[in-house]
Amino acid sequence: MSAASHSVIDPVELTRDLIRIPSVTPADEGAMDVLERTLTGLGFTCRRMVFEGPTGVGHDARIENLYARRGTASPNLCFAGHTDVVPTGDVAAWTAAPFEGETRDGILYGRGAVDMKGGIAAWVAAVSRILAEGDVPGSLSFLITGDEEGPALHGTKRVVEALMAEGEVIDACVVGEPSSAHHLGDMIKVGRRGSLNTWITVHGKQGHVAYPDRAANPAPVIAKLLARLDAHVLDDGYPSLDANAPLAERDCVSVGFPPSNLEITTIDVGNPATNIIPAEAKARLNIRFNPTHTGDGLIDWLNREAGLVQAETGLRIELTHMCSGEAFLTEPGVFVTAVQDAVEATLGRRPEASTTGGTSDARFIRALCPVLELGLVGQTMHQVDERVPEAELRALTDAYQAVIGTVFERL
Amino acid sequence: MSAASHSVIDPVELTRDLIRIPSVTPADEGAMDVLERTLTGLGFTCRRMVFEGPTGVGHDARIENLYARRGTASPNLCFAGHTDVVPTGDVAAWTAAPFEGETRDGILYGRGAVDMKGGIAAWVAAVSRILAEGDVPGSLSFLITGDEEGPALHGTKRVVEALMAEGEVIDACVVGEPSSAHHLGDMIKVGRRGSLNTWITVHGKQGHVAYPDRAANPAPVIAKLLARLDAHVLDDGYPSLDANAPLAERDCVSVGFPPSNLEITTIDVGNPATNIIPAEAKARLNIRFNPTHTGDGLIDWLNREAGLVQAETGLRIELTHMCSGEAFLTEPGVFVTAVQDAVEATLGRRPEASTTGGTSDARFIRALCPVLELGLVGQTMHQVDERVPEAELRALTDAYQAVIGTVFERL
Repeated sequence: MSAASHSVIDPVELTRDLIRIPSVTPADEGAMDVLERTLTGLGFTCRRMVFEGPTGVGHDARIENLYARRGTASPNLCFAGHTDVVPTGDVAAWTAAPFEGETRDGILYGRGAVDMKGGIAAWVAAVSRILAEGDVPGSLSFLITGDEEGPALHGTKRVVEALMAEGEVIDACVVGEPSSAHHLGDMIKVGRRGSLNTWITVHGKQGHVAYPDRAANPAPVIAKLLARLDAHVLDDGYPSLDANAPLAERDCVSVGFPPSNLEITTIDVGNPATNIIPAEAKARLNIRFNPTHTGDGLIDWLNREAGLVQAETGLRIELTHMCSGEAFLTEPGVFVTAVQDAVEATLGRRPEASTTGGTSDARFIRALCPVLELGLVGQTMHQVDERVPEAELRALTDAYQAVIGTVFERL
Repeated sequence: MSAASHSVIDPVELTRDLIRIPSVTPADEGAMDVLERTLTGLGFTCRRMVFEGPTGVGHDARIENLYARRGTASPNLCFAGHTDVVPTGDVAAWTAAPFEGETRDGILYGRGAVDMKGGIAAWVAAVSRILAEGDVPGSLSFLITGDEEGPALHGTKRVVEALMAEGEVIDACVVGEPSSAHHLGDMIKVGRRGSLNTWITVHGKQGHVAYPDRAANPAPVIAKLLARLDAHVLDDGYPSLDANAPLAERDCVSVGFPPSNLEITTIDVGNPATNIIPAEAKARLNIRFNPTHTGDGLIDWLNREAGLVQAETGLRIELTHMCSGEAFLTEPGVFVTAVQDAVEATLGRRPEASTTGGTSDARFIRALCPVLELGLVGQTMHQVDERVPEAELRALTDAYQAVIGTVFERL
């Protein structure tokens, strides 16, 4: 394909086009069509991957996903993102209409401006510039979902499963989530903690406080179990820093995770009577864990601790667990360094490789290939008046263009 | 006064007359008038003591109380009780009308039959028999309230305060609460545990579970405090049995209390979100305590423990306490033994001197004089089809008559 066959795409105009489509999760409203048309125009082969099924929130979903690839050669550098956005919240609190894409004083307003229609548009624009000048020594691909802000059950997770089943090879992936903390390019995300929720119920026997021998109070049992779980040190971070290791070795560990952390998110008995021993006590935990642990390993530990307290107290303790994502880390290496170098060369700022923050679709992609997140400043995401300076959309396009070039030079 | 001036009162008929007055707490409906007329007829000087004030349950109350005394000589043996009754509950579930006093197969049905219009009627009947034959070497008195089943703020408590302020001397008191457990006269109550409720609030700082450093979770702090309080042994009963004491001394301890007991009656955070660290955690305790402790002593201990956990965790812990009654014990001695002997001589069963059960007005009277509870079998109290065999009302009258005689012989 020749450079001349493609026009250069303006990242601001494409962001505005996407903002004007009210694709509030899980609605698509034609957002995927806009991308498919644009990418087809750039020479990509587009596959719409529609997945349906239960959402766990009372209704079934039908989710639009798109996998687009240009070229068949190796390596294959993928960009991942989502076209769905969170709801507007109180529209009256916005100073700009959330789905009009108004620019005021050089700043583009609208739901999805930073999370993450702006990121998608910048990567598409970067690709269009590269293709206007030549080509890449390999393949470019896009993995775009319409189900990232919702339950995320029929989006990236299922696309990755399908691509793996087919044997599709992706060598590295950049997710365009708003990874920057304060200034564009100050942070990339190279890993995320895993997340486990556990529901605890202690079954006792109701009775009158004056006759405790005829009752079995679940409240002190849950307090004891929770105090015990809370006092346990899960780890001291990842990688675990060996204080006796040679200094040089410790210096190599530039990216890591804070210690895994357990939070008791609620405890509930709900007994209004001052003279009644309650029948049941419930609590819920959330554990954010680094790669020292797996969800299953933590579940084993929790079950074992509950079993010990059950044996000590004679009260039945029931646990239910749901692990919404395992921890992952894209270790420092050629890919991460290439991205850091490209951002520094373009924006004059070397991004910190961080593992902070909540979960993202990167956790699913990690099964396919090394993955990191690089995108806009996230400060207005999910808020009213979500907005991005147009200059930052253009600067991100520059950075993405440099990233693509540098990654293909070094992979 | 001569014996001939008084007629003998039938305990069944007086119970029935009182049942027919629907004196559901705090209503009097004329119940106190019936007693006043009857006691005046027996030569008592009656004082109506009406107290008004807030009830703590949203409206003010105007409570009828009666203090009646016959004679001015010492000693003064008092009978205490209440004319108010608990609500009927589901009237359709009764097999007899709750306020008609129907007798079926020798059993008298009605609200208050055992708790405790029957007890009042039996003591009045016992007094009438004694006066029909002679007199007592001292004074007889009645302390009757219309506020025992309610908040009990303007009943016995205020009458006792007024009598103490006047310098009125009462030497011993029998409360006619249904103290018998299974058979008439099998148990007298010679003490009661105290009761303390404590409300705990731990103030934290709300945040996202992914950023625990920016939040302060109150849930583990309350779990830790509660586990710590629950693990503390308050005492080993009262009197504390010294295992090294001479055997004879230990044998003397025939009446005692079980160990003081702390129950966590509720723990509440009420956080529906799995990813939020809550701002506040609440719990409530009830302590039933024996005379090893006072309410103030326990409050000091709880405040001290909370202070330690507050210092360790840095989270503010707020405690609110309400002591609804101190522990009391009428020690074994002449009065208790006289009552036990009289019951055994009349009913052929020596009552166990017990300190079990909930609180009663005896806790207020204890400030005036030794007090114990002797009355009917409590099994149907507060239930539908509350009822008493007429034969038991007559047997209790026999026992009360013997108690009055024996107490005046020995005091």
